[in-house]
Order: sequence, then C-alpha cells, then structure tokens
Amino acid sequence: MYRYKLTIEYDGTPFVGWQRQANGPSVQEAIEAAVERISRERRVVHAAGRTDAGVHARGQIGHFDLTREWRGDRLREALNAHLKPAPIAIIAAEKVPPDFEARFSAIARHYVYRILNRRAPPTLERDHVWHVARRLDASAMHAAAQCLLGRHDFSTFRAAECQANSPVRTLDRLDVTRTGELIEIHASARSFLHTQVRSMVGSLEHVGSAKWTARDLEAALDARDRTRCGTVAPASGLFLMRVDY
Amino acid sequence: MYRYKLTIEYDGTPFVGWQRQANGPSVQEAIEAAVERISRERRVVHAAGRTDAGVHARGQIGHFDLTREWRGDRLREALNAHLKPAPIAIIAAEKVPPDFEARFSAIARHYVYRILNRRAPPTLERDHVWHVARRLDASAMHAAAQCLLGRHDFSTFRAAECQANSPVRTLDRLDVTRTGELIEIHASARSFLHTQVRSMVGSLEHVGSAKWTARDLEAALDARDRTRCGTVAPASGLFLMRVDY
Repeated sequence: MYRYKLTIEYDGTPFVGWQRQANGPSVQEAIEAAVERISRERRVVHAAGRTDAGVHARGQIGHFDLTREWRGDRLREALNAHLKPAPIAIIAAEKVPPDFEARFSAIARHYVYRILNRRAPPTLERDHVWHVARRLDASAMHAAAQCLLGRHDFSTFRAAECQANSPVRTLDRLDVTRTGELIEIHASARSFLHTQVRSMVGSLEHVGSAKWTARDLEAALDARDRTRCGTVAPASGLFLMRVDY
Repeated sequence: MYRYKLTIEYDGTPFVGWQRQANGPSVQEAIEAAVERISRERRVVHAAGRTDAGVHARGQIGHFDLTREWRGDRLREALNAHLKPAPIAIIAAEKVPPDFEARFSAIARHYVYRILNRRAPPTLERDHVWHVARRLDASAMHAAAQCLLGRHDFSTFRAAECQANSPVRTLDRLDVTRTGELIEIHASARSFLHTQVRSMVGSLEHVGSAKWTARDLEAALDARDRTRCGTVAPASGLFLMRVDY
C-alpha cells in the first residue's frame, strides 16, 4: 500500500463543503470518485480541514492510499482529467510515508478572509468575497485583532455544532490589511474551531464599522459565550490557503 | 438634458459582449434597461470599447443623457439596484459636459490579459484566465513584444470583421510579467483594432512556448497579413482596465 498527499484547489461555491453529505455534492466525494476511476479502488480521502459549504481552498491537503505505485505528476494529471468539469484541481500529488496524516500531522493552518469594501456590488469576485458596502476602518480592525492572539478559550467564536474536545486554541496570526477596495484578514494557527475564522471576522467587522470598540472585542472573547459573538461572516470570503507539516 | 459618465465593471462570461445583439444578453442592454427603469427614458448607453463576448471590464466607460439632473452617487446606487442579479456594477457615476463622448473623447485604453500558466486547470479563476498548461517563458515574451511598440500597420493582428478605416495604430505599452503561475500582459494604446490584443497575445504565446522566435513575431507584423497571426487568445483572459480622457 502506498500513501499519497494531494494539494487541492477548489471553488467551494457549488459544494456542500469538503465532507461527503447526503444533501448535495461535496469536494471529498468528487475526489474519491476520481480516485476510484483511475484505480478501481474505493478509498477515503482525508483532508487537513473540513471546509464548510461555500468555503474555498488554494492549498487544501488530502491523503489516501492506493495499492499501485504512481509517479506524482502522473497521479495529478489522471485525477485532474477525471475531476472535470468540477471546479476542483489537484495542484500537486506526491508519495508520502505511511504515517502521514493530512489532518493530524498538520502543524499550522493558514486562512485568508477577503472583504470587498465598496458601495458597488461584486461582479468578477462574486462568491469569492464578502461584500460590505459601509466603509470599514482596516487599521482599527487590525489593532483590535491583536487581543485575540495567543492561547485562549475561544468559546465565543465557536459554532454550536463544533465537535472539538476543547475550546482552547492558540492563534498565531490575525492580520488585517487593506489594498484599495479589498480587505484581507490573514489567520494562522495549529488548528481552528468550527467557524472560528468567520466568527472572528464577523466580530472584527463590528470593530471596522465602529459598532464595537477594541475593548468590546476583548470583552466578547473573555465572556466565553457564543451569544456574544458578532455576526458570522459568510463562507464566500474564506480561503484555506496553506497547511504546514 | 444632462450627460452622465459611468465607470462600469462586469464579468463578461454570460454576455454576448458589450453591444446589444439579437442572439443573447448584452451588457449594453442590461444597463439601458436599468436606465429606463429609474428614469422612464429610453436612452442609448455608448461605451469606450465594445468588448467581445466573454471579455471582462474593471473600468469600462459609458455615457448617456437624461432629462433629469441626478447626483452621481444617487444615480450609481439606483442603477446598481436595478442591475441585480446581473454581474454588472456601476463603480462611479458623474455628470459631465454635454460634449463628452465615452468613445471619441478617450485618449488611452488600458487592457490586461491574464494567462494561468500551470499544469492544473483553473478553478477559482475559471472564465477569468486563459489556461496554458505548457511552461511559457515570460521574459522571452516581453522581449519579443517590444517590437510591436510604436506606430504600425497592425493588419496581421486585426479580425476580418474589424470596421476601423485604417489598420494603423500606435501601441504605447506591451509588457509581459510573471507572478508565480500568473502571466499578465499589459497593453495600452489610444485605440485598438478589433481583437488586436487577443491576436497579439496569441502570437506572444507562440514565442513563450518557443514555437516562434522574436524575429518570427516581427516578420508576422511586417507581413501585414491576417493569415500570419498566431492563434487568437480566448476572450476569458481579457480585461478592459481603464480608459483615460
């Protein structure tokens, strides 16, 4: 048995999310179908991060096993040929040691959240941004965000359906930058709770629009209370960019 | 009568192009319908560049007349409200002198052509790039492109259906840059012939893949012969970025 690591890019718009579900097409199901077509083997493809419906990936990581030995580039080409026309692409495929686990071997996950901050609605970026028409103060958002860095109980920024054993996480980076109309929020941690990035972004938007002060954000964190979270930002703006091992 | 200038962004994918046509939805028709809905006046909206089917715009310019005086921001908001859900957005609207002509007053047009140059197919950029799987030498493309600068008879790079009186144009900029997997070709001129940018890009691709030398490109230009043009690059990669007045 050989183990393979995939670097995967996808437009999350048409999918119910990474994970296989009865109610619609998933990224996992599409890749597993392509794996079966090239190998005649039914394999589970495990991911580093189970992205929600509508969330995108530039560098999702998956792993699975095959009986046959494949050259990485051949495996990538074969899978891409069978993934069409789904908006999923295998950027890289490589053989890895059998103890490699896309989810459990990961030491850092990097997300970007994109806000299109202008009056006019998005056209070319539709489904790939959160459109916020009122002017946001990105500098205030960045300054406030820094109180979330480090090891905290993130219960406030955790979805009710989150299955993690502990609400404690260590946030390594939460940078807010503006380039013209585009605000990008860079978030990095070993791991995140379910909807943690979108919950933090929704709360930061309250800071950017002066609905909240930086102190309100800190108080929300300290409350460890889901009802104190700002609006959860929409899935369309979120991109899983990279996973480190 | 008041004249208004619009700065328009659109995703060209679902449209037959800028211009009103019997065979499908056009950007012009969508904006004219919005103008009629807010004003009860049937007006022609004239554009700086009549983009082809599938070509996008970040900064298309249009003009039209209305009996009533509007504040620019109110006009923009009203039009955007009526353009939904079409992927067309009015970025700015302003009152201009009655002699302003989107097409004839323009002194420069700026286009960008985007090539996604990697093995894996596009996902998030689908319909917004030309996917070229074989590796292109962007430096060779840039060097060769410089022979097209200046005043030339561009008959080689002109569509058969081009309606311009003269095939002579003055090309001010043709820069090819690479950022990772993305190659961008920046083209600027007072005006372009029909499909000129896509024709030049298709020929530059031949240089990038070493099918042509820089001298072959120069010979193609000198031939003033449409049959000497490389493949015309697909519409999906082309963006009208800005028009100067």
